[in-house]
Amino acid sequence: MKEINIDLAKDKYSIYIERGLIDNISYFIKGINRGKKIALIIDENVDNLYGCKIRTHLIDNGFSVKTISIRGGEGSKSLRILDSIYRKLLDFNITRGDLIIVMGGGVAGDVGGFAAATYLRGMDFIHIPTTLLAQIDSSIGGKVAVNLPEGKNLVGSFYQPKGVFIDPNLLCTLDTREFNNGMAEAIKYACIADKNLFHQLLMLSKEEIDREIEDIIFTCCNIKGKIVMEDEKDRGNRMLLNFGHTIGHVIEKYFNYEKYTHGEAIAIGMYNITLKSEIAGYTKEGITHQIKEVLEKFGLPYRLPDMDRGEILKTLALDKKSKGNNIDIILIKDIGEGIIKNLSRKIFFKEFFPHKTKSGGAI
Amino acid sequence: MKEINIDLAKDKYSIYIERGLIDNISYFIKGINRGKKIALIIDENVDNLYGCKIRTHLIDNGFSVKTISIRGGEGSKSLRILDSIYRKLLDFNITRGDLIIVMGGGVAGDVGGFAAATYLRGMDFIHIPTTLLAQIDSSIGGKVAVNLPEGKNLVGSFYQPKGVFIDPNLLCTLDTREFNNGMAEAIKYACIADKNLFHQLLMLSKEEIDREIEDIIFTCCNIKGKIVMEDEKDRGNRMLLNFGHTIGHVIEKYFNYEKYTHGEAIAIGMYNITLKSEIAGYTKEGITHQIKEVLEKFGLPYRLPDMDRGEILKTLALDKKSKGNNIDIILIKDIGEGIIKNLSRKIFFKEFFPHKTKSGGAI
Repeated sequence: MKEINIDLAKDKYSIYIERGLIDNISYFIKGINRGKKIALIIDENVDNLYGCKIRTHLIDNGFSVKTISIRGGEGSKSLRILDSIYRKLLDFNITRGDLIIVMGGGVAGDVGGFAAATYLRGMDFIHIPTTLLAQIDSSIGGKVAVNLPEGKNLVGSFYQPKGVFIDPNLLCTLDTREFNNGMAEAIKYACIADKNLFHQLLMLSKEEIDREIEDIIFTCCNIKGKIVMEDEKDRGNRMLLNFGHTIGHVIEKYFNYEKYTHGEAIAIGMYNITLKSEIAGYTKEGITHQIKEVLEKFGLPYRLPDMDRGEILKTLALDKKSKGNNIDIILIKDIGEGIIKNLSRKIFFKEFFPHKTKSGGAI
Repeated sequence: MKEINIDLAKDKYSIYIERGLIDNISYFIKGINRGKKIALIIDENVDNLYGCKIRTHLIDNGFSVKTISIRGGEGSKSLRILDSIYRKLLDFNITRGDLIIVMGGGVAGDVGGFAAATYLRGMDFIHIPTTLLAQIDSSIGGKVAVNLPEGKNLVGSFYQPKGVFIDPNLLCTLDTREFNNGMAEAIKYACIADKNLFHQLLMLSKEEIDREIEDIIFTCCNIKGKIVMEDEKDRGNRMLLNFGHTIGHVIEKYFNYEKYTHGEAIAIGMYNITLKSEIAGYTKEGITHQIKEVLEKFGLPYRLPDMDRGEILKTLALDKKSKGNNIDIILIKDIGEGIIKNLSRKIFFKEFFPHKTKSGGAI
């Protein structure tokens, strides 16, 4: 079993990675929490696939379990769903000494984690991420949140789990598009921090990737863990993790989070920011082409879709990396070398979305 | 000006106490936060009395201010009101670099503080408590929360302000019952930790109390600050602050938070728990009488009202100090010497609510 220790100002916990890990989860739980009750906040699809198995295991090990099932999709990250989770926790008479398990992808992790962060002013919880994206990204770092109708993740906390339990076997039931959604984040880690990982992702066959996935997950979690430990509250170096995300978020929002997965949107973001950055001389020559190659290998798009420039500007103004009139943009100098550049939002917009058209025109 | 430094695991800030402090508040704000926008979350009554003055002062000092007014009363500590606060913050386009001021009593402090704790995953905020209760208790320690219909403070965080600004002049507009509501907490601090304060409260005339209020507030904030620094997350010694609160909460809830103020309910709690504890030999003889004397001086009740025993048991089971079948009860050995006693809930109930009656009977 692989273990990564996360050691933050106030919180310490581990990320455990092993095939078949969830078959033994109660052993770990007993080391973390002494309660007898467990609320299992679980994605509806994951519940259908694995709910019965994990419940049986927990009950066999002496726990009393209440399942709180969450529908997939951003719609579940609402204050209304949050309220319904609170009421179910209350019905279950769960106390501050008990445990919440959050099991699913990013959506269940975000809303379940925020419920754990705020119910009774914060309860112990663990993550069992079930998508590649959640295993290498959203379950690590303590960001939990719900959406407001006006935007994503506007209400939330930084709240750390007591442990993250990653079982790569759970990825067997992911479809290819969802797997590649996660691979886009793996490519991002490689771009900002790990040349070897990049070449591994570029060179290995699909079958080899599947075989090596435990190592790949470990490498990605290590990169994220290290960055989070340096900057828990996302005010400095943690911004590196946003490589491809500024343009990516614009695309996701523009198409209402429907046309592109998160990974697809940031794939387009990584390629296009690097394309311009290479032309501007910030990035070594040829890097954009390498990024394109690896994206194509995982069926990820790279071409910027048609979008209205006015809408882009509006979204950029709301970007959390905006500070006054400037914005922090993440670029790479070379594969494995991410840098943060503070640009005026106007210059960024001109440089990276240069085709002037009238309102309504395409870029 | 008096200053108390609060130094916690991750957060450091000061409590400032001075008459007329809010006339100068922007000077302090500029030392804390570099933003230009301030959202003023303020109790409606406080807004009528002081809103215009503070807004003018802030605008004169270059800030852009949005007022978010909160009606008094526990009804405002709801998820619905919280949602409306989020939407107003959003309308104002406030960013993570800006500031929230929370001004009012416990209700505004709790819901405004929780909004600050969660909007954009946490914004800088300062407290300007305007009741004696808020000045010596609820604004210190970082507890912020909203209620669910089933109970108080069930959803919340531990989230520290960037500063607490206590202006005793604001107490001029408090009515006597509300002032005495706060005095009950001052008496509590005296009982658990400060014999001198107890004698001061017992001996000084009303006029002398008014004259000495800045010192009394300072003494109380110091006691609370010290306890919070030892136990930020309320898992150990911080429970001492609950002296009188176990019975007090039962009374408040039983009468639907209408008949008794918080201070009145804990006054009854402090007297009755000590009465039984003196009989049981845990408390020095004569202490109960001294507590009665000081309570009477501030027009605070001490007699246990008629209540149904079944309801009492139900409320006790939900008490946050309950752990399995036991409950932590706070007693005093002598004035100034609080202790935590872990009792079985059954024994506590029998010992402290001893009169056996059929269901529906009075105690």
